[in-house]
Amino acid sequence: MTGHHEDRYFDSDPVIRRHARALYEETRALPIVSPHGHVDAAVLARNEAFVDPASLIITPDHYILRMLYSRGIPLESMGVVPLDGAPPAEHDPRRIWQTFADNWRLFRATPTRAWLEYELRDVFGVERELDSDSAQPVYDEIAEKLGSPEFRPQALLERFNIEVLATTDAATDSLEHHRALGAMNLGSRVVPTFRPDALFQIAAPGWREEVARLERVSGGSIGSYDDLMKSLARRRAEFRAMGATATDHGVLSPQTERLADSEAESLFDKAHRGEASEDDQSRFEAHLLMEMARMSVDDGLVMQLHAGAMRDHNDMVRRRFGPHRGGDIPVAAEFTRNLRPLLNEYGHEPQFHFIVFTLDESTYSRELAPLAGHYPAMLLGAPWWFHDSVEGMMRFRRQVTETAGIENTAGFTDDTRAFCSIPARHDLARRVDANYLAGLVARHVIGMNDASDMARDLAYGLAKRAYKLT
Amino acid sequence: MTGHHEDRYFDSDPVIRRHARALYEETRALPIVSPHGHVDAAVLARNEAFVDPASLIITPDHYILRMLYSRGIPLESMGVVPLDGAPPAEHDPRRIWQTFADNWRLFRATPTRAWLEYELRDVFGVERELDSDSAQPVYDEIAEKLGSPEFRPQALLERFNIEVLATTDAATDSLEHHRALGAMNLGSRVVPTFRPDALFQIAAPGWREEVARLERVSGGSIGSYDDLMKSLARRRAEFRAMGATATDHGVLSPQTERLADSEAESLFDKAHRGEASEDDQSRFEAHLLMEMARMSVDDGLVMQLHAGAMRDHNDMVRRRFGPHRGGDIPVAAEFTRNLRPLLNEYGHEPQFHFIVFTLDESTYSRELAPLAGHYPAMLLGAPWWFHDSVEGMMRFRRQVTETAGIENTAGFTDDTRAFCSIPARHDLARRVDANYLAGLVARHVIGMNDASDMARDLAYGLAKRAYKLT
Amino acid sequence: MTGHHEDRYFDSDPVIRRHARALYEETRALPIVSPHGHVDAAVLARNEAFVDPASLIITPDHYILRMLYSRGIPLESMGVVPLDGAPPAEHDPRRIWQTFADNWRLFRATPTRAWLEYELRDVFGVERELDSDSAQPVYDEIAEKLGSPEFRPQALLERFNIEVLATTDAATDSLEHHRALGAMNLGSRVVPTFRPDALFQIAAPGWREEVARLERVSGGSIGSYDDLMKSLARRRAEFRAMGATATDHGVLSPQTERLADSEAESLFDKAHRGEASEDDQSRFEAHLLMEMARMSVDDGLVMQLHAGAMRDHNDMVRRRFGPHRGGDIPVAAEFTRNLRPLLNEYGHEPQFHFIVFTLDESTYSRELAPLAGHYPAMLLGAPWWFHDSVEGMMRFRRQVTETAGIENTAGFTDDTRAFCSIPARHDLARRVDANYLAGLVARHVIGMNDASDMARDLAYGLAKRAYKLT
Repeated sequence: MTGHHEDRYFDSDPVIRRHARALYEETRALPIVSPHGHVDAAVLARNEAFVDPASLIITPDHYILRMLYSRGIPLESMGVVPLDGAPPAEHDPRRIWQTFADNWRLFRATPTRAWLEYELRDVFGVERELDSDSAQPVYDEIAEKLGSPEFRPQALLERFNIEVLATTDAATDSLEHHRALGAMNLGSRVVPTFRPDALFQIAAPGWREEVARLERVSGGSIGSYDDLMKSLARRRAEFRAMGATATDHGVLSPQTERLADSEAESLFDKAHRGEASEDDQSRFEAHLLMEMARMSVDDGLVMQLHAGAMRDHNDMVRRRFGPHRGGDIPVAAEFTRNLRPLLNEYGHEPQFHFIVFTLDESTYSRELAPLAGHYPAMLLGAPWWFHDSVEGMMRFRRQVTETAGIENTAGFTDDTRAFCSIPARHDLARRVDANYLAGLVARHVIGMNDASDMARDLAYGLAKRAYKLT
Repeated sequence: MTGHHEDRYFDSDPVIRRHARALYEETRALPIVSPHGHVDAAVLARNEAFVDPASLIITPDHYILRMLYSRGIPLESMGVVPLDGAPPAEHDPRRIWQTFADNWRLFRATPTRAWLEYELRDVFGVERELDSDSAQPVYDEIAEKLGSPEFRPQALLERFNIEVLATTDAATDSLEHHRALGAMNLGSRVVPTFRPDALFQIAAPGWREEVARLERVSGGSIGSYDDLMKSLARRRAEFRAMGATATDHGVLSPQTERLADSEAESLFDKAHRGEASEDDQSRFEAHLLMEMARMSVDDGLVMQLHAGAMRDHNDMVRRRFGPHRGGDIPVAAEFTRNLRPLLNEYGHEPQFHFIVFTLDESTYSRELAPLAGHYPAMLLGAPWWFHDSVEGMMRFRRQVTETAGIENTAGFTDDTRAFCSIPARHDLARRVDANYLAGLVARHVIGMNDASDMARDLAYGLAKRAYKLT
Repeated sequence: MTGHHEDRYFDSDPVIRRHARALYEETRALPIVSPHGHVDAAVLARNEAFVDPASLIITPDHYILRMLYSRGIPLESMGVVPLDGAPPAEHDPRRIWQTFADNWRLFRATPTRAWLEYELRDVFGVERELDSDSAQPVYDEIAEKLGSPEFRPQALLERFNIEVLATTDAATDSLEHHRALGAMNLGSRVVPTFRPDALFQIAAPGWREEVARLERVSGGSIGSYDDLMKSLARRRAEFRAMGATATDHGVLSPQTERLADSEAESLFDKAHRGEASEDDQSRFEAHLLMEMARMSVDDGLVMQLHAGAMRDHNDMVRRRFGPHRGGDIPVAAEFTRNLRPLLNEYGHEPQFHFIVFTLDESTYSRELAPLAGHYPAMLLGAPWWFHDSVEGMMRFRRQVTETAGIENTAGFTDDTRAFCSIPARHDLARRVDANYLAGLVARHVIGMNDASDMARDLAYGLAKRAYKLT
């Protein structure tokens, strides 16, 4: 397959390619450390066979769905079930797969295609190219494999050589599946990540429901700001007990600001009465990020911040199919002024790790690399989402490294809910980093010894240290 | 000539160069589809000989004038006529040409030089390098050619292998030249584009005059918002009848917002009384973009949006020489929030094509590629103006393709009023795209079959489909 | 040493490398023109031996300190003296040097390491790689050299082949050291640069003190806005008499706006009463930039503008150690609207040179290149600070040249207070420019003759002409 040349993603210049091969050889077999992603713990705990190729690979992948949708293919015809419970226009996985294969060309030169080519060949052993003609035989091949024990989730976890896998879990999650996984003595460490966003979004319609959920899981009524903070602290402790080493926070704007307790209380009360505005929410979130940082200084949980995605831009899709169906679009972000309160208060704490992700590449060299290159606590997360790609990673390295070095970055995170794409994504990242470093060696910016050290760190060591997974 | 090496703009790496040559060979002879530009229909319809090299090549080219002006050469000395009608300091085309040649070095490594080198050699057959010494003989060579029938506009249209050429025309244009061209049975299709900007700019001094022009051409008085909308609809129909497939809209900020009819009416009334403010204009434009989208959904005209140019930044130049004399400077643009109303209302309409151009490259990967990679209606226009260049095109491809693929882009548009530069610009674009794709093949991201398909689409197919020119 | 391969920073592609070598050969031995930097004139005037390697190379270098600090090494342990006068935790230069060497890896792939490798080998003749083991012998080698007359500042000035060196001096500086240097008949021209920022910052706590300083040095009380303007004018004349050819202005936002004299006066009065707000300061600065431009038109001093650095982001570091200890972080900048008043009023003045620097790379192609490519007075300063690096320079050239050409740029400025890094920085810039031009030659965008001309201009000619140092 095209995407499977053994030298893929390496520059064709013979000097660079030679160095890239050598560097990649040192990292390709390293275990996978996946400190941030969206795999469903239940799938791993239950360890049932995946149902069929379409529902495994296509329907849950918002990268695939949004591209097909953008070229006029209705989500209904890809098996996406409307919120109103009406049956999707198409539910036959074979026909969904066929439509996907018929539109395979749309993905040329995208990371989605790179990952899928790896998955098809390296995970499922499919040798032929996907196209309209091969769609059904390829489907059969995968479907057959999915029936075998070697393709159960836990078997794949081992085969993928995943040393650690962190899931992302609501602060209100029961953690039952993590508890089950913990009792199983797997070869891999599967840990939860504490993500309390929904409890911070006091202007969202579902906020009170989410608080009720927190009451049930943390046992005790939450009638005040103080109750909320205590419940959050308790839940953090429970996540830690289950192996969590990190929290995660998604915000539109990375504002941070400490409010007076009285103001925080009055915002909570407003929310409780269902009267909080968008502005109230922004202030509440800015304050709670300060509080999360304070708690991280105390309990040692690594704090991740994902800023700049406007969720559900496409209102029609959200209303019809629910949230996160590919209508999340980035906006410009500002970090220098917004993170100042948090960094001034906690940025020098020796055990605090604060990992920041952006969708606004103009902030790499202007704001993020200078901030990470100054504050001891701050590290830069891997190129995120749309930028988790061959060119995106190269831009990140080139715009960040000269100011922040590599040790102010946090290694690679695959950030995926597509379980079978994990090895593909790490492989691509290792190749691109090998190629980046090879380019530096070829221009005599660094020597091969340093490059080799750096390659291993980028592929493995940095993530373990940044996320305290050692 | 330097700029005319047969491998120009191809990477020197032998693998990339070999692939680039092969891909370019497949596209170099394809007909030119020019769906957006500023050639004057009158020039084509009248088909008179061009007067002299300076007034053909230099005086109307704002890329050339602004560069010379930036290095201290007064516009008057390049034959630009002041508004007050005073004779320009220099009107001898030979001396203007000489000044240009004396400053040829200023254009090194710019696209202007690349295009002109092509024009001189491939269009006019000039073999020697332009410099102070060769200026007059080169002038003579071109001048002589301009006198011959082979260099009349219509002959060049055929020789340039232009299949379709779209001009850009005020909504108030009589379309007489297009009517004449339509009756001529040319080998090329020359069509108008509907550009109603001046009618939307209710705070501009010339607005009422423009409305009067619309009254004359559309026959009927325009005393209300409703009258205006009806006239616009009628004119759109007339443009369509004359072959138009698209509209074009230039705005400082790409704001879109539907106003209540009553508000739109009251803004019109304010404008009618000469009292509309800049703010009023912004709201009116935002609303009319919504209306233009609505009409496009109805009548099928492709909608183009060019956002982010602050016109006439240099007030002294504007006062002395009139608008668009090279003092147009980009500002930062925001698309995610601004386009949301329009995309939410019309972004899923199957026959709506909405092509967006930006001068703010930071929006490529952050906003535009994600939007085009989601909404069925939206396509990305080619790198525009300052970015229509070797490096500019590479940045566009690298920042856009991984998220949006190539099928969410609208092909190349030369956007030029310099008629003789059209083949130069398309040739440069085809070369740069061939080189981009060759780089992907060399790194095994795509195979040659896909690259070849994509090269033809980028050079020809995408523009035809995006602009409904098939 | 790694960083000292004779082909460092050149692409490995053999065609590009061959051209790059040839171009670099033409510029490597050109004299250094350093029209903007922060070397201390006193050091040159006194011409005393440098004390030790740590206090020469490490303690004053905020690039080094911030990187070490970002990875958890306290500033105190690098010999930085707290404001409260408490002794630093570490003051033994050998131990400071050792800590630095132990963390040498942090600088891999950063320009700091590139400059230091050059300094160690080419300035101090150190042959071995720096690491924990070699730290003390390397220290000894350097320390020994520092004792010899060949390593006195003036000897190095000559050995570095510095034709002109401009320092940056407060408007209130006595210029005594420049006076002394002027009397010395050195082979190099050392000139001051007029930087009145502190006098414009009317909301800063130290403003009145700074005015008092100006009173002392310019002789005469300053009780009004008018007095201030007269003193500034007098001081400009004194700087010019001492050889200055330029002024320099640092602002957070590059706002320019002419205020009515009465408003300027009332802002001065407010400041005099200690009541000026941040907003007042912004308006005052915007107005004084207009005044500085006006004076430059009169007296011919080149005007430099450095915009977009938020000073002392890290409040704890500022309180403990004073300003500029590595906590300066960029913010987004806007030039198109902000510079319009200044450019409209003075942008066409034939003898006015206005050189603009940015930390926001997104403005290169969007705002700065178009502005410099239009206004006769405006030139673009070299990639500044975080962007003064191999990749940063390539981004600058690629994003600026196609629109502005090279003649609207101002050549290289090393901008350094690290005296011994000057040749390293110019060497790196010459190599990167040679490589950039070589890439254009390899792709047949320009020919070798043009490239050779351009290389010499970038390395030498542009800076001399832009800063009127001819």
